[in-house]
Amino acid sequence: MPNTATFSPPVSAAALPAWAVRYRAVRAQSTVLCAPLLPEDTVVQPTLDVSPPKWHLAHTTWFWETFLLREYAPGYQEFHPQYAYLFNSYYNSLGSRVNRADRGTLSRPALAEVLAYRAHVDAALLALLENEASLPEVFFELLELGLQHEQQHQELLATDIKYILSTSPLAPAYLELKVKSEELRVNSTEAEASAESILNSSLLTFNSTSAAQWLPVPGGVHRIGFQEEGFCFDNELAAHDVLLVPFELQNRLVTNAEYLAFIEAGGYRDFRYWMGEGWDLAQAQGWEAPLYWVRQQGGWFRFTHHGLRPVELAAPVTHISFYEADAYANWAGARLPTEAEWEAAARHFEPTTAAGTWLESSLFDPQPLPADADPTQCHQLLGDCWEWTYSAYHAYPGYTRAAGALGEYNGKFMVNQLVLRGGSCATPESHIRISYRNFFHADKRWQFTGLRLARSSDQ
Amino acid sequence: MPNTATFSPPVSAAALPAWAVRYRAVRAQSTVLCAPLLPEDTVVQPTLDVSPPKWHLAHTTWFWETFLLREYAPGYQEFHPQYAYLFNSYYNSLGSRVNRADRGTLSRPALAEVLAYRAHVDAALLALLENEASLPEVFFELLELGLQHEQQHQELLATDIKYILSTSPLAPAYLELKVKSEELRVNSTEAEASAESILNSSLLTFNSTSAAQWLPVPGGVHRIGFQEEGFCFDNELAAHDVLLVPFELQNRLVTNAEYLAFIEAGGYRDFRYWMGEGWDLAQAQGWEAPLYWVRQQGGWFRFTHHGLRPVELAAPVTHISFYEADAYANWAGARLPTEAEWEAAARHFEPTTAAGTWLESSLFDPQPLPADADPTQCHQLLGDCWEWTYSAYHAYPGYTRAAGALGEYNGKFMVNQLVLRGGSCATPESHIRISYRNFFHADKRWQFTGLRLARSSDQ
Amino acid sequence: MPNTATFSPPVSAAALPAWAVRYRAVRAQSTVLCAPLLPEDTVVQPTLDVSPPKWHLAHTTWFWETFLLREYAPGYQEFHPQYAYLFNSYYNSLGSRVNRADRGTLSRPALAEVLAYRAHVDAALLALLENEASLPEVFFELLELGLQHEQQHQELLATDIKYILSTSPLAPAYLELKVKSEELRVNSTEAEASAESILNSSLLTFNSTSAAQWLPVPGGVHRIGFQEEGFCFDNELAAHDVLLVPFELQNRLVTNAEYLAFIEAGGYRDFRYWMGEGWDLAQAQGWEAPLYWVRQQGGWFRFTHHGLRPVELAAPVTHISFYEADAYANWAGARLPTEAEWEAAARHFEPTTAAGTWLESSLFDPQPLPADADPTQCHQLLGDCWEWTYSAYHAYPGYTRAAGALGEYNGKFMVNQLVLRGGSCATPESHIRISYRNFFHADKRWQFTGLRLARSSDQ
Amino acid sequence: MPNTATFSPPVSAAALPAWAVRYRAVRAQSTVLCAPLLPEDTVVQPTLDVSPPKWHLAHTTWFWETFLLREYAPGYQEFHPQYAYLFNSYYNSLGSRVNRADRGTLSRPALAEVLAYRAHVDAALLALLENEASLPEVFFELLELGLQHEQQHQELLATDIKYILSTSPLAPAYLELKVKSEELRVNSTEAEASAESILNSSLLTFNSTSAAQWLPVPGGVHRIGFQEEGFCFDNELAAHDVLLVPFELQNRLVTNAEYLAFIEAGGYRDFRYWMGEGWDLAQAQGWEAPLYWVRQQGGWFRFTHHGLRPVELAAPVTHISFYEADAYANWAGARLPTEAEWEAAARHFEPTTAAGTWLESSLFDPQPLPADADPTQCHQLLGDCWEWTYSAYHAYPGYTRAAGALGEYNGKFMVNQLVLRGGSCATPESHIRISYRNFFHADKRWQFTGLRLARSSDQ
Repeated sequence: MPNTATFSPPVSAAALPAWAVRYRAVRAQSTVLCAPLLPEDTVVQPTLDVSPPKWHLAHTTWFWETFLLREYAPGYQEFHPQYAYLFNSYYNSLGSRVNRADRGTLSRPALAEVLAYRAHVDAALLALLENEASLPEVFFELLELGLQHEQQHQELLATDIKYILSTSPLAPAYLELKVKSEELRVNSTEAEASAESILNSSLLTFNSTSAAQWLPVPGGVHRIGFQEEGFCFDNELAAHDVLLVPFELQNRLVTNAEYLAFIEAGGYRDFRYWMGEGWDLAQAQGWEAPLYWVRQQGGWFRFTHHGLRPVELAAPVTHISFYEADAYANWAGARLPTEAEWEAAARHFEPTTAAGTWLESSLFDPQPLPADADPTQCHQLLGDCWEWTYSAYHAYPGYTRAAGALGEYNGKFMVNQLVLRGGSCATPESHIRISYRNFFHADKRWQFTGLRLARSSDQ
Repeated sequence: MPNTATFSPPVSAAALPAWAVRYRAVRAQSTVLCAPLLPEDTVVQPTLDVSPPKWHLAHTTWFWETFLLREYAPGYQEFHPQYAYLFNSYYNSLGSRVNRADRGTLSRPALAEVLAYRAHVDAALLALLENEASLPEVFFELLELGLQHEQQHQELLATDIKYILSTSPLAPAYLELKVKSEELRVNSTEAEASAESILNSSLLTFNSTSAAQWLPVPGGVHRIGFQEEGFCFDNELAAHDVLLVPFELQNRLVTNAEYLAFIEAGGYRDFRYWMGEGWDLAQAQGWEAPLYWVRQQGGWFRFTHHGLRPVELAAPVTHISFYEADAYANWAGARLPTEAEWEAAARHFEPTTAAGTWLESSLFDPQPLPADADPTQCHQLLGDCWEWTYSAYHAYPGYTRAAGALGEYNGKFMVNQLVLRGGSCATPESHIRISYRNFFHADKRWQFTGLRLARSSDQ
Repeated sequence: MPNTATFSPPVSAAALPAWAVRYRAVRAQSTVLCAPLLPEDTVVQPTLDVSPPKWHLAHTTWFWETFLLREYAPGYQEFHPQYAYLFNSYYNSLGSRVNRADRGTLSRPALAEVLAYRAHVDAALLALLENEASLPEVFFELLELGLQHEQQHQELLATDIKYILSTSPLAPAYLELKVKSEELRVNSTEAEASAESILNSSLLTFNSTSAAQWLPVPGGVHRIGFQEEGFCFDNELAAHDVLLVPFELQNRLVTNAEYLAFIEAGGYRDFRYWMGEGWDLAQAQGWEAPLYWVRQQGGWFRFTHHGLRPVELAAPVTHISFYEADAYANWAGARLPTEAEWEAAARHFEPTTAAGTWLESSLFDPQPLPADADPTQCHQLLGDCWEWTYSAYHAYPGYTRAAGALGEYNGKFMVNQLVLRGGSCATPESHIRISYRNFFHADKRWQFTGLRLARSSDQ
Repeated sequence: MPNTATFSPPVSAAALPAWAVRYRAVRAQSTVLCAPLLPEDTVVQPTLDVSPPKWHLAHTTWFWETFLLREYAPGYQEFHPQYAYLFNSYYNSLGSRVNRADRGTLSRPALAEVLAYRAHVDAALLALLENEASLPEVFFELLELGLQHEQQHQELLATDIKYILSTSPLAPAYLELKVKSEELRVNSTEAEASAESILNSSLLTFNSTSAAQWLPVPGGVHRIGFQEEGFCFDNELAAHDVLLVPFELQNRLVTNAEYLAFIEAGGYRDFRYWMGEGWDLAQAQGWEAPLYWVRQQGGWFRFTHHGLRPVELAAPVTHISFYEADAYANWAGARLPTEAEWEAAARHFEPTTAAGTWLESSLFDPQPLPADADPTQCHQLLGDCWEWTYSAYHAYPGYTRAAGALGEYNGKFMVNQLVLRGGSCATPESHIRISYRNFFHADKRWQFTGLRLARSSDQ
């Protein structure tokens, strides 16, 4: 098979109408996400993992300039000779670049300049698309990849913005930024009442509806990896068979209420549930709860895109590291599913993507399972939160790293990280699919990460 | 003697007209300095020493709120309950605060909110001043101190802004920021010609005019410390006698041309001229020239408030650490003056402040000594650059730390730093006086710091 | 299945004669290994991974005291009340302990005291064994585990001693330490001649004999994990089926000659072959060759237990990290086998353990493949060097962590590390078996670690 | 004046009999100090400041080899070609060397080899001295310096050994190391009784005898610096006049009882007494008392050369940093003397060296002031503990750094440190003199460092 294109099965340009429409839509989404921000919010890098929104806006643009315009747009004039240095993320193939840790020290180019950069590149790319017929097939493969790449950064924008706003003692709410930040701060008495009422109502909802069910998944040979039509990343290939013993999976994600029980049972103070490195880290960092959780006014709150809000008990727990997910599972007498188990189960249960997941829904938080959800179905598999699996992010059998800079896109990260599955409330809808492999180090918590329990069938 | 106020000799409110006028003028200067900046420029902290301009604007305002309005303005409503935490710099007396290293991670409060904070505080303070007669004398001492404090931060604003803009590969010029940053970048061919012509002309000027002269200063008992009328900081007190042996001082600052000779003679590669800690640091950091110097197009350029400019040979060298100043002096067969020698000499020579020193002159660089300067006079003592002395910043005899938070203003820093004298081109004019003691650690380079050679008389 | 004993299948005491004989032999081996050392050599910790030999001798003794004597020897008097604190390695279950990084800062207890500690514990344990019949079965399980544990530390002793001696510019040879260290140093002219002759002869040998062969391994369902009689560690369980596609494996390990070709082809300067984290580390550390290699006198030498010796070209390459093994494989157009592939192949080829592998052979280096080795056989699978696999060290299906302190033995490390297979020239013979799972982080190089190439069958 | 030798006034060889006798005696003292140690104790470096005793023994020997034998012993064969690299301390003039932080990672050369090195060098040097007449004057200047240098390291040996033994939970007592370490450990009930009785008796003694007296010192011109016959270090020159205002000094050192009052008054928890950098450090390190103090059994103990002992209340406090000394003085309403004040006072009071100070006295702790001490005299000025002064370690007027490697002996450290005066109970007697300038960074605590209070006369 002539699998030269690492990132996608062959794409016929003729078959795909309206590249320009899609390009415009995807590009617009990035700036829409930043619209509620002030220029100041787009500059800072409060921790190494979180990049300044201004940088995301520029880096995605650099991607188009570097991989498409320089190659395929005759006479294209680059916007600025230094931007290749400033906005390369990690491509050694493309030369030296700003140290990642220094992204938040650069005030220039300013947001306005970055937006001008975007306009410059968009104009050139849309001009190119006016004459689609003259472009080679590989151009459209790169175009597809560029769109996917930009969407991946949209999810990072959502989570990085959340982190940036959370560091301020003022706790500004992303989704109400039109309102004076003054008025947003949780008024203590009101909040207390509100917290109580929410706690009560959540608990009620929770109590009445959501005892999790164990659903059996048959053993035997299952085929995993991308087997559908359309785009996929190279790391989803090749599709291959795996042999599984029968196991069981819970019919929904672990909830905040369940996780709170773990906290209250001393889960963060008992090393027996933890991987050694996780335990050491949790001690060194003083972890006592998921990221963004704060205990105040006699209850738990968490920082959200809506500002500080009481923890909603029936909603899935998020912003936990692999170490916490694993410790919770140990405490609960269960385990995390492997990547292969997760995908086999997902293919077995044929889930649909969560309604209202994507960014424009303004929800930005995985939703509780409705009280009337069918307990024999497997819920919240797609588009709620990234589910930690107990599988290292390694290459699939038959994977080969692409040549050139794009070989650095996924391939060089295939060690020391863990696979997450399912997509989150901040994942662009077109990225939510059964074979999609997300990956992070075991200590990361700033994405919408949660867990679902698995267990062996003979338990 | 009723010198209870550590920071100033007694001040009679009646004798000082127009407090309100001065207050307005000083406060306005801070915002004027930030006017050319974009909001993005006011957020970042590219190195620990450099604070975000937004922080300076808020911290100086916090000072007024904390030390004056809370104490003396009945019914004053603080602007925001969290600002005391956010904008305390280093006063343990006033409780916990944002870690200094994290100042650049906070995007909020935004610049506009900080400006609103300034307006809120200014209104309250000016309202208070409408009824001067009702205020106690100590209020006016604190008012004076607040003005001095704000002016000290203006010098830091000037140097921090310079550092911030320097980190961008775009090298934006503070003083031409109305022009598109694009057009500011040194056009390579033009610049090369310009560099060459400047190099030539500078060398000519330098060669024809400025061989430094050694001026004798008599030995014996000299009185140093503040002995004049008006305000001084507590660290300038008490005036006291020192015994000096005769010595000689150069009649001007060391120039870039002279310093370049040190560089070219291998001064940065020969440990014999260096203090041990200085040598280790210079090696670890790869120092080869003063801060902001870059070698390109066959010559030396330096980043200035005007952007990247060829090094002006006849101008005083600046942006050097104590280690470099000391190494240069050793290489030149001379030494740095002590603090007492510097002040005794300055009182002996009766200098005047450099014309056009202060910020509004838009020069922001110490100027070369005019070709026709009288070689028997001592030049560039005040208002050109901070001159490193070979004296630790210790308390003068008779100094006592003030009680309360203001005791932390100067007193707790009186170890491990070195005294600098004379004031720089970025120092507010009212801060330029013979007894003023500036102090920094031996490794600091981001202020306008230079040196003047001394030697013992019998050499 | 009543698999309560995590570390071994049930052991019948009656069936195992001569526990005391084995105990004595294993314990003696530890001290024999340290016999050539001076007390000074037993104290230092030149890098975090390397523990002082004195610590190994004490920690293994602590294991017996803690898990067996305290539990099963009535009236046992502990040797010293502080030793439980001093010599606990990583068992949170057993309380606080010396920070791992500080092991090399403690001169006391001295070596002689540690040897007295060993004698004290040995006497107590041998006394206990005189009355075997009175001891419960679990005692013998722990006894077996203690012996295995001590043997694991013997391999660490061999590699840690090597590292310790290597840090001295004197390069003392462990195996000739009776000779004056003076005489051991490579005499430069002699060595040069010797190096050249060895280089030549090695190359000849290599050229004439050892082109590696690709051996096919059939696909389908393979059973891996411990399936034999006798002891195994809990991490080798449960045996389970895996599904493999057909693949090929080289019939021997990668040699120094082959690895040298990678070096000379610029493998350490070309990021394309490397995992991202490996590349960054290699740059930061300045890696140019395996650990212990030094270029001198126009050739490559390596520090060994015999001192500094020319690199033997036909011998397997060792002391490489996973990153280097993976980069080499990429450069060679192949890949590393997975853990399952390795074990399936090993079971397929029925290897025997390398002759003369174990410590007393005094070889301490994997040997070249003989020139007349059958090319249709798979060689060097067991007892030559640890072979990096491309499999994360995760729990096998059905694994459950043991309760209590022993649950920390293997289980809490099951993330962020990679599996190595096969055993090395420093591995005790009884630890060399097909199902044994060793594990290290991807950056570790101080063990005898090498690689064997794999590839998919359709290449 | 032909004062070319920076380190000493001219020395006439003829006038100094018995160089060989002195050389033997000084050299022997170094090994005698190490005699109670085990080889293990001579290897470790538990903190950066503390060098392994084995290193001290070798480095002092290297000094003789490098500065005397290589220059003046024709045909001298160096002991080992690598030792120049291994045992150079900080002389850039003499090339690269082992990183200071790695001194404790080298087990080789072993102690026996170092002792052989010492014998080799001693034989060569004593052979040279058999023909004194043929040696130039500068040789004897270097000989004197070598002896002084070796003695300085003897004080470091005493304090470094103390630190090394203190790190062991076994708390071995240097001075009773013949006794089994077992028996040395403080028996808890005995110790409690003993502690109580000592606490009581000390307090009684203290209360009845030792209220400190303030002794006036006249103002005016005082001459400080070396003005006597014999050897001095270059940093004691040139003698010069200083102008002082009248002040007062306490007639004895601050005692443990007084310091304990500071601790109990919350001195370690109140930032107002502290220099800013000292406060931050004390918080970060969790300081609550001097180095070596531990609170147990209801009282304070401290680790000494005799093992763990109750704090003797009437003895001078030691093992405090400058920060603590300064904070204590602030709390006590006094201040530290300057270096010039200390020396002027010492010359005014004509102290004698403490009886029984030096190492062979086996005391290793400054002794309490006798109850019948004359309160009008100034006590404990010489040979009790190093007294922190409030003076930076800067060059005296007229100081010039020597050329060559010896210019690195003192000159390159003349910034960022503070002067200590008076000599301690571990200082070789010939080093105890009024003009001697010791120097350490403000945070150092492992020397015998204490303080004496000063105050201005008009208080």
